[in-house]
Amino acid sequence: MKTAFLGLGNMGRPMALNLHKSGLEVVGFDLATSCLELAREAGLQCADSAREAARGAGCIISMLPASAHVEALYLGEQGLMAELPSNTLVIDCSTIAPDSARKVANEAQRRGLVFLDAPVSGGTAGAAAGSLSFMAGGTAEAFERARPWLEKMGANLFHAGASGAGQVAKMCNNMLLAVLMIGTSEALTLGQAHGLDPAVLSEIMTRSSGNNWALEKYNPVPGVMANVPAAKAYAGGFASELMLKDLGLAQEAAAALKASIPLGSLARNLYAAHGLAGHSKLDFSSIIKLFQEPPHES
Amino acid sequence: MKTAFLGLGNMGRPMALNLHKSGLEVVGFDLATSCLELAREAGLQCADSAREAARGAGCIISMLPASAHVEALYLGEQGLMAELPSNTLVIDCSTIAPDSARKVANEAQRRGLVFLDAPVSGGTAGAAAGSLSFMAGGTAEAFERARPWLEKMGANLFHAGASGAGQVAKMCNNMLLAVLMIGTSEALTLGQAHGLDPAVLSEIMTRSSGNNWALEKYNPVPGVMANVPAAKAYAGGFASELMLKDLGLAQEAAAALKASIPLGSLARNLYAAHGLAGHSKLDFSSIIKLFQEPPHES
Amino acid sequence: MKTAFLGLGNMGRPMALNLHKSGLEVVGFDLATSCLELAREAGLQCADSAREAARGAGCIISMLPASAHVEALYLGEQGLMAELPSNTLVIDCSTIAPDSARKVANEAQRRGLVFLDAPVSGGTAGAAAGSLSFMAGGTAEAFERARPWLEKMGANLFHAGASGAGQVAKMCNNMLLAVLMIGTSEALTLGQAHGLDPAVLSEIMTRSSGNNWALEKYNPVPGVMANVPAAKAYAGGFASELMLKDLGLAQEAAAALKASIPLGSLARNLYAAHGLAGHSKLDFSSIIKLFQEPPHES
Amino acid sequence: MKTAFLGLGNMGRPMALNLHKSGLEVVGFDLATSCLELAREAGLQCADSAREAARGAGCIISMLPASAHVEALYLGEQGLMAELPSNTLVIDCSTIAPDSARKVANEAQRRGLVFLDAPVSGGTAGAAAGSLSFMAGGTAEAFERARPWLEKMGANLFHAGASGAGQVAKMCNNMLLAVLMIGTSEALTLGQAHGLDPAVLSEIMTRSSGNNWALEKYNPVPGVMANVPAAKAYAGGFASELMLKDLGLAQEAAAALKASIPLGSLARNLYAAHGLAGHSKLDFSSIIKLFQEPPHES
Repeated sequence: MKTAFLGLGNMGRPMALNLHKSGLEVVGFDLATSCLELAREAGLQCADSAREAARGAGCIISMLPASAHVEALYLGEQGLMAELPSNTLVIDCSTIAPDSARKVANEAQRRGLVFLDAPVSGGTAGAAAGSLSFMAGGTAEAFERARPWLEKMGANLFHAGASGAGQVAKMCNNMLLAVLMIGTSEALTLGQAHGLDPAVLSEIMTRSSGNNWALEKYNPVPGVMANVPAAKAYAGGFASELMLKDLGLAQEAAAALKASIPLGSLARNLYAAHGLAGHSKLDFSSIIKLFQEPPHES
Repeated sequence: MKTAFLGLGNMGRPMALNLHKSGLEVVGFDLATSCLELAREAGLQCADSAREAARGAGCIISMLPASAHVEALYLGEQGLMAELPSNTLVIDCSTIAPDSARKVANEAQRRGLVFLDAPVSGGTAGAAAGSLSFMAGGTAEAFERARPWLEKMGANLFHAGASGAGQVAKMCNNMLLAVLMIGTSEALTLGQAHGLDPAVLSEIMTRSSGNNWALEKYNPVPGVMANVPAAKAYAGGFASELMLKDLGLAQEAAAALKASIPLGSLARNLYAAHGLAGHSKLDFSSIIKLFQEPPHES
Repeated sequence: MKTAFLGLGNMGRPMALNLHKSGLEVVGFDLATSCLELAREAGLQCADSAREAARGAGCIISMLPASAHVEALYLGEQGLMAELPSNTLVIDCSTIAPDSARKVANEAQRRGLVFLDAPVSGGTAGAAAGSLSFMAGGTAEAFERARPWLEKMGANLFHAGASGAGQVAKMCNNMLLAVLMIGTSEALTLGQAHGLDPAVLSEIMTRSSGNNWALEKYNPVPGVMANVPAAKAYAGGFASELMLKDLGLAQEAAAALKASIPLGSLARNLYAAHGLAGHSKLDFSSIIKLFQEPPHES
Repeated sequence: MKTAFLGLGNMGRPMALNLHKSGLEVVGFDLATSCLELAREAGLQCADSAREAARGAGCIISMLPASAHVEALYLGEQGLMAELPSNTLVIDCSTIAPDSARKVANEAQRRGLVFLDAPVSGGTAGAAAGSLSFMAGGTAEAFERARPWLEKMGANLFHAGASGAGQVAKMCNNMLLAVLMIGTSEALTLGQAHGLDPAVLSEIMTRSSGNNWALEKYNPVPGVMANVPAAKAYAGGFASELMLKDLGLAQEAAAALKASIPLGSLARNLYAAHGLAGHSKLDFSSIIKLFQEPPHES
């Protein structure tokens, strides 16, 4: 059965290639010709339009930058969904607003399609290694039907609930991650200002009730851990501007339901300030710079 | 060698009893007669004053509520330190301001005493079980000399650095813990508002980059975990007012050095609002109430 | 020339009546029959649909709850704009998202209509007294053409800029107002906790650099000022839930452009917590309750 | 009657000179010889020690950097108070912690002295012009007795309450001022990002409910107002590091009484981040830089 993969950027390309390498027939497409070329060079068969890629496919997978792109692809009289035979499986792996995911899911249901929102975590490294985590929203049937594709691209599959729930789970997780990273940065900086060695303080808190993913796996202080962005001037990793985008989705979701998320909102505004100061492209652990004096030049 | 244990409250009493049960000669004291009586009933030998308890002791351990009590006990011409023979080991397990700990340590050094600040984490349950964590500040020699006592009261001994470093480590850890608890509460509440089962969302985030001690060991949503305060109407555990006190120490420490701790400060102010709303005595995971609508009465 | 007034709620009804009393021919409409009846009882001529009210009108004014209502009224093939003769003046007084206002303005321009976004401040009292402030977005020509209508409903007319600018100005003003109210509440509560009479502290700060609209005109401490909501248990005034809505628009607008608004966002989350605690309907100055211990019952 | 003026820095020197020019006999002192010299050059009589300056004086005025300096000057067996004849008037104009002011006041009362805490606002310009505001704490008698001196240095005299109340009033006012400045900066930046002219938006908000001292008298956007620090690259004015100090006093005062001041605390942490980024010496209105992209160089 043919699979169409729409969106061949830094995440989508390695995901599509993993499906291809597993033996599936995959046809890709991207609006950017540079992405198309990179995918073709890597051995992926590509089409000249989303419509052509989707023709005859039993499964459509999309990996696009934001809500607007996903809605533009699928919805409306000109949208792709109007062309798909009923019962086609559609998996959107983009990180978008839960409301947007629900809107697309509703249209899919109206047209007899099987839709899953399935955003990922794990970054470009996880995409290349096929070790992504998927957080999926949709029926249990849709989740099971999608499993063979998801398993070829990722290592952890979570069924979060009904349509939109995959987006909600990812949004909540990433909001919490931002809070962990900033809280960890504050604690390590405060301790250092009071004379503690950040490696010693990290070790103590990791073995105490302050332990968290950012501290244990992704320490933001240069020199404490090898193989993390802090060890290479915050290059690579998960860009601050992407964290800012995810935090923006959380604000929107909170505003829609009158929820109160004071730390999550403050985290967004601190990442916004960090971006304004010119650090958008650095890994999100670089937020610790907000709390440090810049090194004096000699 | 005789050990004096000064401060026999909910933490100090079980700690002193563990030393006593291990075979040491322990003499306790507390200014509150109710505490003295409870300690005597539990089998601890007690004196009628701190001075009497300390007479002839080779090791003095104190466990008091706040900086003012510790300074009053040890410092000044009337203070206990003026009476102790040089080389006496003094271990203060109270949670106090790092500056206060350093002040006491300086006086101890001036008088030829061996001083360690060694605040604990683990709560009353850890004190009873002898499984506390100690975060200690002082010389390596002082830390080694104190080890036999600390090992009888706790399971994890950390040497954080020079005098005051134990207090700094605990303060940083608890500030981070408060941030973890509030961030986790926000994420779970936001997810729930958008239709997710908090148990499912907790499971997903625990296995993802949102993982942290509060989420994994101490879930604040009633019904997700057994044997946590959330399972018993937030009774027991670590009272919100004690968390508020620790967060206050972090503000003071940040202000002293012009450090920036935006999430830590917001956490303090949210705990203060929580206390004003009448929840001081509830476990600190009850902070989730700030983000929830109160249940409707039937 | 006939004027159609669409939306006859607590704000729209007195505004329409002021136009009517000034001698204009006004025909109103509201989807809620209760609002229609109240308007008819007050002497306003009403139609049975927006379409009927608009037929033959040279000026259309709308005053609706939120973006979705405004877009539903005007846009799409079924929308009202498709029916209006070119050059009709359309004034939307609703408080909605700037992006939504720009969308409606673009459609109006495409159809040759003259559109102004003109949200108001001043509340129901200002609407009744004809003393509202209007913050308008659109061309200078549109602003001048609308002036005769706006002057009959308000006392201060501001031309903020191009389409959407009226919404932006109101959104920024109200975000700032929320910050003023919360900041003033914190300062007065902190001073009171340290023994100051809030009336004395209010007087001092009003004559110093802490002066602001909330402190000077709308003191949140009961007993300091007469004729403000604080003097009547926070009844009347500008409901906390409406402030929460406006603060939500500001979050959305900040997220769209990567702006950083830490105090504005924190203000939104505190109003959200205040609403969750059951205070949505109280005037927005009741936010001071977050910082006070509730009075003890006797 | 001789007046001793202790502390001849940027504030104290012009204050002392205003007393001198009014015809009083003033003898000054400062620990820093550079300050002493500047004062002597300006025509002020100076002594070689605080003790000598105070000898025979009926009124002692101090203007020192922080709590520690005030306590060191007055308290203890070596302190100045031990030397003063009873009924001497002592006016401390330093900005210090309320608790510290109360401690000094208690000692003064014990010794039969008349003490007033009387911190000022108005900056170095106000000090030179004799137009300072004084916020005073002490008995009504002390306030009246101090009036002749205060009137020669300032234009507005406020009696805030009992001892310490002057410090509390100033602390609350300045915390509120920081919130006004940051809130105004956020609103103007958000409006500008959405296309509004900051001068137009400032004009609208000044005439609406967003009006406040920072907006009306001290606009932070360069080009909107003349004669404010924003018009001269944020030079002069009230340094960000002094605002940070005052906000630190507010945190301490809130922590001491379990008060909740979320916006005030966030303001402190934003000023701390601003200082870490290298802006300590700029006027406090430069905080708007946190919300702006730095100008691109050509």
